[in-house]
Amino acid sequence: MKTVFKNIALIGKYNTPDMRDTMLAMLGFLSDYPLNIFVEEKTAIHCNIVGQQVLKINEIGNKADLAIVLGGDGTMLAVARSLAASGIPLVGVNQGRVGFLTDISAANMFDSMASVLSGEFTIEQRILLLATIVRDGKEFSRGSALNDVVINKTGMSHLVELEVHIDGQFVHKQRSDGVILATPTGTTAYALSAGGPILHPTLDAIALVPICPHTLSNRPIAINSASSVEITIVQARDAAVHLDGQLLMDVLPGDKVIVKRDQHRVSLLHPKEHSHYDMLRQKLNWG
Amino acid sequence: MKTVFKNIALIGKYNTPDMRDTMLAMLGFLSDYPLNIFVEEKTAIHCNIVGQQVLKINEIGNKADLAIVLGGDGTMLAVARSLAASGIPLVGVNQGRVGFLTDISAANMFDSMASVLSGEFTIEQRILLLATIVRDGKEFSRGSALNDVVINKTGMSHLVELEVHIDGQFVHKQRSDGVILATPTGTTAYALSAGGPILHPTLDAIALVPICPHTLSNRPIAINSASSVEITIVQARDAAVHLDGQLLMDVLPGDKVIVKRDQHRVSLLHPKEHSHYDMLRQKLNWG
Amino acid sequence: MKTVFKNIALIGKYNTPDMRDTMLAMLGFLSDYPLNIFVEEKTAIHCNIVGQQVLKINEIGNKADLAIVLGGDGTMLAVARSLAASGIPLVGVNQGRVGFLTDISAANMFDSMASVLSGEFTIEQRILLLATIVRDGKEFSRGSALNDVVINKTGMSHLVELEVHIDGQFVHKQRSDGVILATPTGTTAYALSAGGPILHPTLDAIALVPICPHTLSNRPIAINSASSVEITIVQARDAAVHLDGQLLMDVLPGDKVIVKRDQHRVSLLHPKEHSHYDMLRQKLNWG
Amino acid sequence: MKTVFKNIALIGKYNTPDMRDTMLAMLGFLSDYPLNIFVEEKTAIHCNIVGQQVLKINEIGNKADLAIVLGGDGTMLAVARSLAASGIPLVGVNQGRVGFLTDISAANMFDSMASVLSGEFTIEQRILLLATIVRDGKEFSRGSALNDVVINKTGMSHLVELEVHIDGQFVHKQRSDGVILATPTGTTAYALSAGGPILHPTLDAIALVPICPHTLSNRPIAINSASSVEITIVQARDAAVHLDGQLLMDVLPGDKVIVKRDQHRVSLLHPKEHSHYDMLRQKLNWG
Repeated sequence: MKTVFKNIALIGKYNTPDMRDTMLAMLGFLSDYPLNIFVEEKTAIHCNIVGQQVLKINEIGNKADLAIVLGGDGTMLAVARSLAASGIPLVGVNQGRVGFLTDISAANMFDSMASVLSGEFTIEQRILLLATIVRDGKEFSRGSALNDVVINKTGMSHLVELEVHIDGQFVHKQRSDGVILATPTGTTAYALSAGGPILHPTLDAIALVPICPHTLSNRPIAINSASSVEITIVQARDAAVHLDGQLLMDVLPGDKVIVKRDQHRVSLLHPKEHSHYDMLRQKLNWG
Repeated sequence: MKTVFKNIALIGKYNTPDMRDTMLAMLGFLSDYPLNIFVEEKTAIHCNIVGQQVLKINEIGNKADLAIVLGGDGTMLAVARSLAASGIPLVGVNQGRVGFLTDISAANMFDSMASVLSGEFTIEQRILLLATIVRDGKEFSRGSALNDVVINKTGMSHLVELEVHIDGQFVHKQRSDGVILATPTGTTAYALSAGGPILHPTLDAIALVPICPHTLSNRPIAINSASSVEITIVQARDAAVHLDGQLLMDVLPGDKVIVKRDQHRVSLLHPKEHSHYDMLRQKLNWG
Repeated sequence: MKTVFKNIALIGKYNTPDMRDTMLAMLGFLSDYPLNIFVEEKTAIHCNIVGQQVLKINEIGNKADLAIVLGGDGTMLAVARSLAASGIPLVGVNQGRVGFLTDISAANMFDSMASVLSGEFTIEQRILLLATIVRDGKEFSRGSALNDVVINKTGMSHLVELEVHIDGQFVHKQRSDGVILATPTGTTAYALSAGGPILHPTLDAIALVPICPHTLSNRPIAINSASSVEITIVQARDAAVHLDGQLLMDVLPGDKVIVKRDQHRVSLLHPKEHSHYDMLRQKLNWG
Repeated sequence: MKTVFKNIALIGKYNTPDMRDTMLAMLGFLSDYPLNIFVEEKTAIHCNIVGQQVLKINEIGNKADLAIVLGGDGTMLAVARSLAASGIPLVGVNQGRVGFLTDISAANMFDSMASVLSGEFTIEQRILLLATIVRDGKEFSRGSALNDVVINKTGMSHLVELEVHIDGQFVHKQRSDGVILATPTGTTAYALSAGGPILHPTLDAIALVPICPHTLSNRPIAINSASSVEITIVQARDAAVHLDGQLLMDVLPGDKVIVKRDQHRVSLLHPKEHSHYDMLRQKLNWG
């Protein structure tokens, strides 16, 4: 069996009972190819994979030219943030229903991977967002997100008041449950539930989607991803910033959250037959 | 000066600087009428009103035949819940912009009150909701709301999973940020921000409005207020029940929240020229 | 076989190829019961049903105590408008997927009808709307609708400008593609596509749902069905009034459309196991 | 007075009573500059402007290096389509409220134009869409739009059924009142009323916004403007294609409408102090 890749890393979600079986099946399948195979260190430990070369997550970008991620969209989000800087392409295999990011199902992973390994694939770049929190003029915290940066109320039913500037220009003050800043990738996640539009992954755009805005004309807006968004917490009893659903930090009145496109992009590899629209139609029950 | 009322109670929001002046002006105005005037006890203390008969809030229903509430919609919500059982009519005077519930502005309160006192008014009944929380088969907590009962996630970005039954019939499971159960009164408050419809106060209805639902076809629904709604918390890391924006209690997976129309209704008194549609048009910037 | 009914009328949609077979199967099934069976005249002709007693549609209310409607929601809408004045209960059998109004599927119509005939059913009343068009102070046209009265632009991309009064009170002027006035029954039809709420059939309410309103804060509103709505066509190049999707008449600037609850209600009969929420969940793909 | 321009053309909306005065005032103001001034031919005739050099609309691109458009957004849309191929920058002066495209108000047009003439301005490129209608495999009609291409039902209350392909990939079939394909410029026009997102003008994107879609999960989507959208009319009793609100042609089942980015872009010139967000905030009543 021939392949265009030389070194492949396997990363899996480990708190799922039958992940070990899927992982072993994939390793068996790959063993027919002239490939150097690595298993990510924690994956190997938790799934009890022995007799394989092991790599720490931060070594994968240097040693491998493809990472296979076994798990759901949540696993892919975490891996993608970790490996974005390395530029290594990622391909997702989903044990359950296919996801927005993991478009190979375990059921036909051998066929899909066979064509991928033979060079039958496309690669697309997805932007990430970089959020920086500034308190008293000093940077306090920062982190990146592949889906979204969410600034929202927590703990109480009280709304937050936010002031939004884009590229130094005042946009508006809004009172709401919060605001979602989503990449195109994130527009099919939380932003969609909040009434935001779907942005195609090839758009260099950031969607700003208010959550339950007090002013009814405060509608979702998509801006150029080259823009810098600055959100000032004007009033909030309890508010926090989340990146891809993970807490970054609690914020206070006066804090500023600056959101920009990250300098790195994630490379997603898809089997050639993959269609973004097929996936949308299937996941969103269109027609 | 003649009036159709005999005993009037004054209740005010007390943490506003110039409330005392408005209160004294109102007392001066009323002193021209053959009326028994009472000031609510805490209002008298905080606003430093002396030389007036004072009543505890729970005595007002027995002793007075009209309560004048000076403050905003928030003050009116609290007073209305306290006095609902007594059936005493309430009229609201707003120091700032008129509210959805407080439709007399301080600027022309003498004219409006003069016509009210002479019998030029309408009275409308507003339903309240009664929420009961059941844990392990036992009632844990209960309370009433004039605007809304909100069951929502708190503290974290994770969604909640709820199962909804109405009158014993399964409606659906939903994953969302939460759900709002609003009276017609509450449909111009938080429920409106979440995309809910406006229900006219004369409708005996309860609106169920999902907050950022995961399933896009989960739309707001209005049901008969004679119905009983039972919401089971299926999954939630942090969730709570709020009544009119005030925390009732935190809830856990397995808890049930039962929401029904309260046995009491609030009587709102309006000057005769009051129009519900004028108020909507003004507050919502229609046309 | 015993039954609580004595005289049953059959009405069918006739431009469907296999309706005749379904009709004959139903007639065969009913022949085991001590029933007087009638077939609606046009149905008999178009489906070539011979050897049965035939009734004109307007005689059915007098002669029968139950009407079985075979067809989809469209057929039921038409029959319901025709028979509303008579008060006769209607039960719908759907050859394809069950509809919002026709909740017995042809696949299990014998079982469902058997329990209906034995008295295992519930009956609910559904309101209709009566629309009257007034031009130059005179009534020009009128008609009733079970789903909705729609006033909208036609023929051109230009919007209409409408002025809305409810119970003599000015509500607002709106510029939009039009407005839908829906009964609770109609809130799962066109009004839902336009962003309207779902109203439970037991609500005595009318939903006013703007179609693509120019003012973003023009939100759906539900009012008491005892109210009278008057809509004046202020500006329109091409506009028309439709009742349940059928043209009533074209309207001109200056025309008024007055919409009220009709004096009659439609009686829908459901098999006992029928649940409105099951139907919503199934038709709207909830969860 | 110095200026960076040499040849300026004036184009006005002519069916407004006081346009002539505004036009003469502008001509008087410009006469202080060393400029070659032209008035568009029809504008000159209808506004009765004499003693000025006159140009046909299609000569303006060759002879002038700036076109001043006096009127509202509708006038600007028409002029922009006519002059797009020439690349000449356009600046809009609005007699009434400023518009989305005409951001200089007549009230301070001298100040704004003085700074524009001195070189204090920015220029932005706006994409147009090119719609081509194909019937029986042959091109039937084509035209361009600065705001939107709309395919919608007309004349009747019946919906249309459309099949959408993007870049040759099947997206979905939808039953709806129609679909709007909007440029970023057009996202603040009709598409916004239909629930679409606001796209910043710097995005190379096309918004597809369904109008009253039957399937509730059919949400607005923004795609890359390099994409080709093909919409097939599957079913429609009466349907038409409109460009910027003007009828292009009626369409029939089987017709295909192909929409792409036009090869030309419109150059809009703004005074330096212009802010897109100020304009949105003002026009949409944000906060």
